[in-house]
Amino acid sequence: IQSKLPHVGTTIFTTMSQLAAQTGALNLSQGFPDFDGPQALREAVGRHVMAGHNQYAPMTGLPALREQVAAKISRLYGRQVSADTDITITPGATQGLFCAIQALVRAGDEVIVFDPCYDSYEPAVELAGGRCVHLHLSPPTFSIDWQRLADAITPRTRMIVLNTPHNPSGALLEHADLDRLAALLRGREDIYLLSDEVYEHLVYDGREHASVLRHEELYARALVVSSFGKTYHVTGWKTGYVVAPPALTAELRKVHQYVSFTGVTPLQWALAEFMTEHPEHVTELPAFYQAKRDLFCELLAGSRFGFTPTPGTYFQIADYSKIRPDLNDIEMAQWLTREHGVASIPVSVFYQSPPADLRLVRFCFAKREETLRQAAERLCAV
Amino acid sequence: IQSKLPHVGTTIFTTMSQLAAQTGALNLSQGFPDFDGPQALREAVGRHVMAGHNQYAPMTGLPALREQVAAKISRLYGRQVSADTDITITPGATQGLFCAIQALVRAGDEVIVFDPCYDSYEPAVELAGGRCVHLHLSPPTFSIDWQRLADAITPRTRMIVLNTPHNPSGALLEHADLDRLAALLRGREDIYLLSDEVYEHLVYDGREHASVLRHEELYARALVVSSFGKTYHVTGWKTGYVVAPPALTAELRKVHQYVSFTGVTPLQWALAEFMTEHPEHVTELPAFYQAKRDLFCELLAGSRFGFTPTPGTYFQIADYSKIRPDLNDIEMAQWLTREHGVASIPVSVFYQSPPADLRLVRFCFAKREETLRQAAERLCAV
Ligand SMILES: CSCCC(=O)C(=O)O
Ligand SMILES: CSCCC(=O)C(=O)O
Repeated sequence: IQSKLPHVGTTIFTTMSQLAAQTGALNLSQGFPDFDGPQALREAVGRHVMAGHNQYAPMTGLPALREQVAAKISRLYGRQVSADTDITITPGATQGLFCAIQALVRAGDEVIVFDPCYDSYEPAVELAGGRCVHLHLSPPTFSIDWQRLADAITPRTRMIVLNTPHNPSGALLEHADLDRLAALLRGREDIYLLSDEVYEHLVYDGREHASVLRHEELYARALVVSSFGKTYHVTGWKTGYVVAPPALTAELRKVHQYVSFTGVTPLQWALAEFMTEHPEHVTELPAFYQAKRDLFCELLAGSRFGFTPTPGTYFQIADYSKIRPDLNDIEMAQWLTREHGVASIPVSVFYQSPPADLRLVRFCFAKREETLRQAAERLCAV
Repeated sequence: IQSKLPHVGTTIFTTMSQLAAQTGALNLSQGFPDFDGPQALREAVGRHVMAGHNQYAPMTGLPALREQVAAKISRLYGRQVSADTDITITPGATQGLFCAIQALVRAGDEVIVFDPCYDSYEPAVELAGGRCVHLHLSPPTFSIDWQRLADAITPRTRMIVLNTPHNPSGALLEHADLDRLAALLRGREDIYLLSDEVYEHLVYDGREHASVLRHEELYARALVVSSFGKTYHVTGWKTGYVVAPPALTAELRKVHQYVSFTGVTPLQWALAEFMTEHPEHVTELPAFYQAKRDLFCELLAGSRFGFTPTPGTYFQIADYSKIRPDLNDIEMAQWLTREHGVASIPVSVFYQSPPADLRLVRFCFAKREETLRQAAERLCAV
């Protein structure tokens, strides 16, 4: 068999989670919590399954859940979007990203991504017959150089993929960044913006999430993706959503209806109910995760890792060049797992061509206090 | 926006279910039961959600569930497949079909499908840059003319899509059909077989499901897709699986891991547990649905619809040419819904170029006895 994705192996998330399981290491690699979703949310699932909500949901998603997403967007970002024409529930944010790319990218098109970037964008673009153009973001700020973006745009550019808060670095865009982007895209209505905002509620130190949903001009060409799994601590529920203006949503849904047809019905009922009864969950989330970040960083301060506390996401990147400069980050992640019992993700795997001197690993701090203390203790002993 | 799928509208399943809801008609259109999945299965979901099984499952699916699928395949079809290398759990059978097509079909490839066929195959092929070659199956038998298939194969043929039991006709392949197919594919190792067997357990009158899994030679080039949603009466759980030899599974998983990464964790736990404790569910399923088919057909015998009891699936097609020959089947399905309160699916939508004189609609009999009686009463009054 001649592979259509010859460069694709097993994702780093699978590899590191498996290594963590094999070695009994604390798993701070793949991005998921080691605590559970809210009890009321979980109880609701059992109730809806027993109440008979087990057949196909509408293709676009349960209306009550789309309404709740629209209400949240209005509350947090001040934008009125239509639950009917702008919101689509997808079986996971990954699938929302995939369908958005498949719906809009054609053979020969270019898609601009910023490295380090999430590993699913490029295979999706390749399967659509397109090509990713990689722009580098550099540590420690991982900020976008808008002039370099302007220079990278060609007549073949069809899409730009943003990710804010940014995985793996935690970097945040500012509203002023969105203004610059809007300005440089003027006159190119054929370029779409795919905004991966699955960590939208994980923004710290009182900063504000510069959602593309806040930006009138950009939203007109945008698809914004988010994740119930990340927001409600239930990554295994694989339920997310895409928000886009009606014309883009229509194209997205054409693909979505043949990729999966619809998402899981009882989970959508439970999420709709929980969002109605607990709108405070999302507003309390920044403080909840900031406390974890602060604890982890405070404890890690006693180690030889270099870092600045992450401004967003539930990932903390750390520089190990004072510890094992002789190891590249993949070797370092394996060594840390095997020798010190803490699994992480090497940052180089998020780059198409990683800088040779990159000495960064990513820790997920979506963990119980006890786990964070134990992990930090081990990391301080390195 | 220039659409990548310009011919795609809303699926007929959405359209008819919506019309049924609007008009208060009995919904015998979209294929889902109006009764619930087994109580023990549903209870298991609540238990696993409360027990904390809410984070990412392995990309390939929960090992315990893959083991149960392997055990079932061994029991029913006498084939030993490896849970590790041959089985992948997908968020719905539709997604399994989509990923299989994306993994193997390239720009310029031809995929042979048999009309009437399920509506998701062609958009998936188009998005992969391929082209569907449609061969017609004719009522009343809807059987495949193997010589015409042989004639349709070209150097560009990459895949053949089988569907047995066949939606919408209910037709079954025989093991002898598989032998013929195997013979005519000899020497063309570059042609893959995608076998949509989501109705594998819905085969009546003591006949046997000629699964491609029974066929040594064909299985070597096959991907076989099935659905927990159909088998366990929980279509809204959107959980299915794909069985394929290791090399094909490897390619399938490369796509799957970037389309969705994995399926829903607590549902996989519940299904694995239920399959372990209730292996009889699948062996009792033919009799369960045959009783519904028999009841529906017996009652429908008093009507002016023409039909022969379906040999498989939970769909019964019916000829209305003695009733309203002036209406095409889309008009007929709408008229039946509006005027007689029974929603169905017009069969022509499953054809690329439907025969002009097609006068068939499809009724789903996965319904409670009461629903079937009421529907039949209304249909007898037409
Ligand atoms: C889908 S597994 C990857 C989870 C994740 O978002 C991450 O670890 O970056
Ligand atoms: C995914 S909705 C269609 C359900 C179905 O299989 C059918 O009605 O044919």
